[in-house]
Amino acid sequence: MDKSERYERGLAKLKEIYGEGAHTLVTALGEVTPDLSRYVVEFAFGDIHCREGLSLKSREIATVAALTALGTAPSQLRAHIHSALNVGCSREEMVEVILQMALYAGFPAAINGMHAAKEVFTERGATK
Amino acid sequence: MDKSERYERGLAKLKEIYGEGAHTLVTALGEVTPDLSRYVVEFAFGDIHCREGLSLKSREIATVAALTALGTAPSQLRAHIHSALNVGCSREEMVEVILQMALYAGFPAAINGMHAAKEVFTERGATK
Amino acid sequence: MDKSERYERGLAKLKEIYGEGAHTLVTALGEVTPDLSRYVVEFAFGDIHCREGLSLKSREIATVAALTALGTAPSQLRAHIHSALNVGCSREEMVEVILQMALYAGFPAAINGMHAAKEVFTERGATK
Amino acid sequence: MDKSERYERGLAKLKEIYGEGAHTLVTALGEVTPDLSRYVVEFAFGDIHCREGLSLKSREIATVAALTALGTAPSQLRAHIHSALNVGCSREEMVEVILQMALYAGFPAAINGMHAAKEVFTERGATK
Amino acid sequence: MDKSERYERGLAKLKEIYGEGAHTLVTALGEVTPDLSRYVVEFAFGDIHCREGLSLKSREIATVAALTALGTAPSQLRAHIHSALNVGCSREEMVEVILQMALYAGFPAAINGMHAAKEVFTERGATK
Amino acid sequence: MDKSERYERGLAKLKEIYGEGAHTLVTALGEVTPDLSRYVVEFAFGDIHCREGLSLKSREIATVAALTALGTAPSQLRAHIHSALNVGCSREEMVEVILQMALYAGFPAAINGMHAAKEVFTERGATK
Repeated sequence: MDKSERYERGLAKLKEIYGEGAHTLVTALGEVTPDLSRYVVEFAFGDIHCREGLSLKSREIATVAALTALGTAPSQLRAHIHSALNVGCSREEMVEVILQMALYAGFPAAINGMHAAKEVFTERGATK
Repeated sequence: MDKSERYERGLAKLKEIYGEGAHTLVTALGEVTPDLSRYVVEFAFGDIHCREGLSLKSREIATVAALTALGTAPSQLRAHIHSALNVGCSREEMVEVILQMALYAGFPAAINGMHAAKEVFTERGATK
Repeated sequence: MDKSERYERGLAKLKEIYGEGAHTLVTALGEVTPDLSRYVVEFAFGDIHCREGLSLKSREIATVAALTALGTAPSQLRAHIHSALNVGCSREEMVEVILQMALYAGFPAAINGMHAAKEVFTERGATK
Repeated sequence: MDKSERYERGLAKLKEIYGEGAHTLVTALGEVTPDLSRYVVEFAFGDIHCREGLSLKSREIATVAALTALGTAPSQLRAHIHSALNVGCSREEMVEVILQMALYAGFPAAINGMHAAKEVFTERGATK
Repeated sequence: MDKSERYERGLAKLKEIYGEGAHTLVTALGEVTPDLSRYVVEFAFGDIHCREGLSLKSREIATVAALTALGTAPSQLRAHIHSALNVGCSREEMVEVILQMALYAGFPAAINGMHAAKEVFTERGATK
Repeated sequence: MDKSERYERGLAKLKEIYGEGAHTLVTALGEVTPDLSRYVVEFAFGDIHCREGLSLKSREIATVAALTALGTAPSQLRAHIHSALNVGCSREEMVEVILQMALYAGFPAAINGMHAAKEVFTERGATK
């Protein structure tokens, strides 16, 4: 599979996950560094997120958990809470994943994750 | 609900997740520090893991993801890979969760997580 | 001891530590997620901070040190510098704890911790 | 104060804290890299640990808390639990500091810290 | 060598690396805590950055890599990207160092590092 | 470029960096998880390490710095110290990179990194 196939496949997957925000995200990152933007699309979405063996819902649960626990990427955490909701997670599931991180990364990590979730919920309004 | 109810509920949940290993784990930790052992049972399992809103499978996916990403608790990571398999995750799902962490915490974290998974798979043998 | 006893005990301890800010803090967190707010009060303050064997002053020194070293929770770090001062630590002790973290977590962690301390000192004014 | 004064002062402070183990520790590190060994003695012990404004007991509480929370330096954690006990902390205080880290860095960090403490307690035997 | 010699040597090295910004940086940090400011100048710059055996360019590459990977000190990361450019690194080299961190600390760390680099590049304008 | 071209290019780069150990490394990782092994070869070595704009020497300096600072991947740290020496770094440069991490990630990180370096130096013997 040549580069453009991996890229197209990754972009399609990214749109499936992020919705219309995908283009903005890729463009914004591409302005900082086109190559990093390309690797995110090709490798993160074209290779990894297209793999079988784990549902997109479970992939986002894993990612939200990890980013909450690490606590160093609040902007990406919000993007993945959006993604999780887009691929079928409920708000309640997001709250539970983040709450559970209190056990494995401490209360401050969980509290900061919960603030991120609240921002996302507010942004999306009451209906989705 | 008094303390012993939370403890009993937590111990039952821990057995549901860890199987027969639960007793050994609680006893071993209790020898180091009875109170920490009690809080793990009461709070981590009696309070958090008994909550509704997220399946046990998803809870373990979240935990395996976080511990792989943090990279500081290899023994607990192995215990949670066991737990994940006990509550219905497939080995393939475990491999995918850990592989995905290459994206969010780097390749060394994913490689070390994969070694933990292989140890657990070997320990469990071919059939479960 | 039933839930409400642990909660009441935790809330009293939190007030002893945070002063009048305790109510605002619990309410603010409760708006994001009532259950996480409840666990913080019950478990973090009702169970752990009520334990004997370590003075509240030493508990806050330990917490300020850990949050400075981790570097991922600036808002909680400021809250615990306030708490430390409330339970009897001097400003000088806070400066020394944070300075010492240069040895164990590097200069950037210590510098960021020191900025947090300065914000807290300014907020409290000259007299307390 | 010239280099050798800072070094001598640091070595004296290190002996006050570690006891007879200080020489072994400096020599062992010096075999790996004499300069790093010298900076540890001069800067960490000659400059920082000789400062006023915080008791040695509180310095060790802060360090044990931070190393437990970070979870990346088990050998140094054990050395500082020894140090804490040498400068007047009780075993109970060590257990409480480590237990408290469950709140700020998660249960695995606290459990691993507790294992370190148990090793140290065993090594020291029943009487000190 | 007495304290003022180490300080003067460190301040000179800091000016070589940061340029005119060095004074502002030392003064700003000194307002928060004079002693931490002094240790940064004496130890970080007077002792470590004055060592032979590694070029200043390689020292800054190492530091930018580490701060990108840790992800907890964005302000210091920007300062060290400035420093790296001041001592002879190209913008392209900065982009490559940060991009490489995607492999060892994950994509969010690299993306956040890249935003820091872009801020620095913008601040410096087109010509340096 | 199709997958096998990226793979072949990555494997060639890996051999340039690791020498004869490359095959063992890829095979060992491939036994745990063939896909992760393939991504390491294709993406980490075929894409990233083949990029222009930064010398292999500087890439390894960046990686050794980051892994020392993170402190969670001792086995990969040793592999990259080997790699750094293979692509032209001196032992002295390795010692300086690791020593410098004391400033940005604390003394325990630098000390543990130095132990890794010493193991690698011993393994390689006196002559390379």
